[in-house]
Amino acid sequence: MENPKNKTEENFTCPLPVTNYEHVTLAHGGGGKLSRELIGQMFLSQFCNEYLEPMHDGAIFKIGEQKFAFSTDSYVVNPIFFPGGNIGELAINGTINDLAMCGAQPLYLSVAFIIEEGFPMNDLWRITLSMQAAAKNAGVLLVTGDTKVVERGKCDKIFINTSGLGTIDDGVNISPKNAAIGDKIILSGTIAEHGIAIMSVRENLEFDSQIKSDCAALHDLVKTMLSCTKAIHVLRDPTRGGIASSLNEIAEEAQVGILIEENMIPVTEQVKGACEILGFDPLYVANEGKLIAFIPPGETDRVFSRVRSHPLGKSAAIIGEVISDHPGKVVMKSSISGSRIVDMLSGEQLPRIC
Amino acid sequence: MENPKNKTEENFTCPLPVTNYEHVTLAHGGGGKLSRELIGQMFLSQFCNEYLEPMHDGAIFKIGEQKFAFSTDSYVVNPIFFPGGNIGELAINGTINDLAMCGAQPLYLSVAFIIEEGFPMNDLWRITLSMQAAAKNAGVLLVTGDTKVVERGKCDKIFINTSGLGTIDDGVNISPKNAAIGDKIILSGTIAEHGIAIMSVRENLEFDSQIKSDCAALHDLVKTMLSCTKAIHVLRDPTRGGIASSLNEIAEEAQVGILIEENMIPVTEQVKGACEILGFDPLYVANEGKLIAFIPPGETDRVFSRVRSHPLGKSAAIIGEVISDHPGKVVMKSSISGSRIVDMLSGEQLPRIC
Repeated sequence: MENPKNKTEENFTCPLPVTNYEHVTLAHGGGGKLSRELIGQMFLSQFCNEYLEPMHDGAIFKIGEQKFAFSTDSYVVNPIFFPGGNIGELAINGTINDLAMCGAQPLYLSVAFIIEEGFPMNDLWRITLSMQAAAKNAGVLLVTGDTKVVERGKCDKIFINTSGLGTIDDGVNISPKNAAIGDKIILSGTIAEHGIAIMSVRENLEFDSQIKSDCAALHDLVKTMLSCTKAIHVLRDPTRGGIASSLNEIAEEAQVGILIEENMIPVTEQVKGACEILGFDPLYVANEGKLIAFIPPGETDRVFSRVRSHPLGKSAAIIGEVISDHPGKVVMKSSISGSRIVDMLSGEQLPRIC
Repeated sequence: MENPKNKTEENFTCPLPVTNYEHVTLAHGGGGKLSRELIGQMFLSQFCNEYLEPMHDGAIFKIGEQKFAFSTDSYVVNPIFFPGGNIGELAINGTINDLAMCGAQPLYLSVAFIIEEGFPMNDLWRITLSMQAAAKNAGVLLVTGDTKVVERGKCDKIFINTSGLGTIDDGVNISPKNAAIGDKIILSGTIAEHGIAIMSVRENLEFDSQIKSDCAALHDLVKTMLSCTKAIHVLRDPTRGGIASSLNEIAEEAQVGILIEENMIPVTEQVKGACEILGFDPLYVANEGKLIAFIPPGETDRVFSRVRSHPLGKSAAIIGEVISDHPGKVVMKSSISGSRIVDMLSGEQLPRIC
């Protein structure tokens, strides 16, 4: 507390049951149970309104007759350059993806930099170029921005916030709440590549060939899917906390059971190997260019074949379905060991993965 | 550079004339000449598009028949609690003001936290409560958010980004480019209070009575002004760099001369005294609840009397006018010492003021 004199003026005390923690921990930003608790009990309890859906990737609202999606994300990934991308590209694609997961066509993005004094201009140039390339590639415009510089040691190199606005077509209604019994679950490709790419650099691991982040903009894939049917119930990009966390959030939000089959989940041999070395379960490792879609059974085949024909969906698989049993839980059938509950992690697995 | 192996793949070199600096300095975030150079030569040169107006507080675009403003700001103020406000309240009011300066009615805000591991939950609670209070007070909704936690020492307590969306009524066309010869310049109140409040805490200065930040949401004042006339040419909230920087930006953008009268600029005696002690010129010190408006001469009296009748405009003054002489420059007439050019600062005056 900088100014105790001030403090006495407005002496707020956090009602401790709100968090059970006296200090913020890394796990509060990890995308697992503690993140959800902090967001739910601290922010949602106060910022409560009809548009603020905790388990959706953005807010959806109407202005006039037009439906919009609006989303924000700050990127603090470490290292800032990694195989397959960098913090700037990630910031553009990540917010595009959040909008796409609302079923929106992304239009305009804001960019806000917090830069550490002494940051190499060359690196900023490199990040800027790849942000513009990513935006151009995705057909979105970076229309407004902000630049702050903090003293050496007061942030870690560079943090980037992007917020985005997109429009949603009539008839599109995508929300984790819409997961319905019988829905088939499509996963658009191999998992855990972003997280493992980051961890490989951090841990200085060498593999036969480099594992690259899957960082990509998914809105065109979503557009393709929506051109096939508007009856998509849920879309989610499984970033922090991996597909395990995303599926758990959806199961809880819709109060349905989710059953997935382990041997249907695409993971490359290389990522499997790296996960074994690093001690990670790929279900919990972040992706930055994959989506999960919940589709009514009658529409699944058509949507699935469209996904498979898209460059970003070549390794897509139908990994499971929504069931009436065990509402709120995710269960995985394994070919070897029967069934097990895939729970949400309570702590943090990988800090600063995005 | 984390990963030299990576670097060789994409070997970007920043064309040095772009910035003349090999590293980012605090001055690049200070709101003066170097800030403008960085933004112009680095970001605008790449992100270039019709909506990205460097000298406006937000982007303005149409979707269907509706005109929107979209704005973003990251807040890194130090200390996070200060007389008259805190980082959370500042983040809400600051983005509301950026939208208001586009002539927009703010509707929806996003909130993204970057929190340092170990940050007191109590302080987060206090910030959350005041953000909600500020949003409620201003009639805006916080609809989407993001929470990241970084390791101890990797950021300074807490940084908050807010982005916002607002709608602009037909017939409203506010832009720094619109400053026209003959326009009168209204300043809505006493200057330099935010910056001095922050610096007083940092420097541990004691005054007879505490100087408080003027942190406030200005959209209602703008609404009042627009209900009087839509012929407002320019609005600007003089934050980083103070009224001197804002006026210089407008003069340069519109290529007009600006003449202001020193003795018309409202400054409290207390702030004057503090500026003398601290060695600051109040013209360059940040405000967080003041606006500058450029109004055609025929409309000025009506608008001015409306401003004066608003709670946030009680000390408003007409401080000058737009002239044809010395385009791109700001000149101040002093009662004692004749006229002098009020230039933009090249370096940083006050880091982390917002």
